[in-house]
Amino acid sequence: MPFTISKPLRFGDCDLTGIAYHPAYLSMLVDVNEAMFASFGVTWKEIMFERKLGLPTLSMNILFTKPAMYGDVLTFNVHVRAIGRSSLDLETVVTVGPDVIWTIRQKIVLTSLENHKSTPWPDDIRAGLSRYLEPALAE
Amino acid sequence: MPFTISKPLRFGDCDLTGIAYHPAYLSMLVDVNEAMFASFGVTWKEIMFERKLGLPTLSMNILFTKPAMYGDVLTFNVHVRAIGRSSLDLETVVTVGPDVIWTIRQKIVLTSLENHKSTPWPDDIRAGLSRYLEPALAE
Amino acid sequence: MPFTISKPLRFGDCDLTGIAYHPAYLSMLVDVNEAMFASFGVTWKEIMFERKLGLPTLSMNILFTKPAMYGDVLTFNVHVRAIGRSSLDLETVVTVGPDVIWTIRQKIVLTSLENHKSTPWPDDIRAGLSRYLEPALAE
Amino acid sequence: MPFTISKPLRFGDCDLTGIAYHPAYLSMLVDVNEAMFASFGVTWKEIMFERKLGLPTLSMNILFTKPAMYGDVLTFNVHVRAIGRSSLDLETVVTVGPDVIWTIRQKIVLTSLENHKSTPWPDDIRAGLSRYLEPALAE
Repeated sequence: MPFTISKPLRFGDCDLTGIAYHPAYLSMLVDVNEAMFASFGVTWKEIMFERKLGLPTLSMNILFTKPAMYGDVLTFNVHVRAIGRSSLDLETVVTVGPDVIWTIRQKIVLTSLENHKSTPWPDDIRAGLSRYLEPALAE
Repeated sequence: MPFTISKPLRFGDCDLTGIAYHPAYLSMLVDVNEAMFASFGVTWKEIMFERKLGLPTLSMNILFTKPAMYGDVLTFNVHVRAIGRSSLDLETVVTVGPDVIWTIRQKIVLTSLENHKSTPWPDDIRAGLSRYLEPALAE
Repeated sequence: MPFTISKPLRFGDCDLTGIAYHPAYLSMLVDVNEAMFASFGVTWKEIMFERKLGLPTLSMNILFTKPAMYGDVLTFNVHVRAIGRSSLDLETVVTVGPDVIWTIRQKIVLTSLENHKSTPWPDDIRAGLSRYLEPALAE
Repeated sequence: MPFTISKPLRFGDCDLTGIAYHPAYLSMLVDVNEAMFASFGVTWKEIMFERKLGLPTLSMNILFTKPAMYGDVLTFNVHVRAIGRSSLDLETVVTVGPDVIWTIRQKIVLTSLENHKSTPWPDDIRAGLSRYLEPALAE
């Protein structure tokens, strides 16, 4: 079952042609990822400031299928596709009503903010992410 | 020969861990693409407001290789990989000194702002983009 | 009674010193103002696209009293201080728990998007704004 | 003599009515202030990371006089109006050609990032800022 959250496309997210400005989509996605971690009780603030861990993105593959317009409500459906030793594969499908607007596959890695090396997922975070684990069908 | 432009990573482009905030990279890339068109004398303003054309992005594939820090000067090297009837394939390599920081492959399409359908590149834009055309080696 | 809404300070709203980046505050305020209009049933989308009206800001006076940190929940209390023929005076007090973080007085004007001149508030918008009308004490 | 720098209004700085989005103006101003310090050889990076000092804004008074449109080149004229023990009063007039677009008066204070208290300007920064010192006429 994906982590799901809805967000309206705000005035400041649109460009002068009246559709979403794509860097604003990425900024919305940061908020969505932050909310997914909070949903299982581990805030990014705790991860960064108490546990001294970072969550850099290694890669993003994005398809923009249909434009979204000012006032549309975007629903983000975040599927956890794989949880490695210290990596995380997410696939997020963003819809407005029945229409797919854009999709993104992201690879994130957990690192130590002290030595900048990858580090294994703590058990509580791994358990939290597992709630949304749903491996992709063979491609 | 790629279109090349340098931009400092500004205070407002960094996140609270001191490195670049990735949505800010995408916003910088919009500026870079805008500057590439201006370099051959066709501004986006003219494209949008006089010619009633739009330049939506269809896909983006991004690799983040190394973090950039506040104060780094990023050099964007934009290679035009293919110019189709109404499509454009760009590959941009972003460096700080000798280091590759991130790379992106983008597919853009030219559309009419009136009927939202794809439309062929006008000759002057095709000629301008051709300056930077450098097909990728066979992959 | 003010219009009140709470918003968390998100990762992307903070600068590299760990506190709120002030342009992000202004972007949050745009969302808050948009939500106040929606609270009485008139969306900005309708105002702009159907009624062909704009809501430019004429002036802003801002005091930053205390920094907000990543993860703080900001409460925006928007007081309508005066509704003129075509102008609107707002005073917004932004708090985190018992602390005032920043305050802003804004003057907004309603304009026609066709001739860019000021135009009187339609009755329904004036009635909606009046819900939050609470003139300032004599200064 | 003011510190002067010009910046184009970029695609991503405009809202869907085709004019500048005012939070983007504030983000441009952060860049301008950063460039003013760099003009006398003291980067914000050095101020923050080596000297452990911060430059929070205490107040901003802004007048928006005329809208700027996509493609306009904004010239920022930054006048240093007063340099206190640890405070700085700036008045910035932003023009497009002969027209004033917006003006801002800002009060900034120098603080220690260690104890968050105000701290006197170091001599080199005070000397640098003095280049642009031009007290306002009696108001």
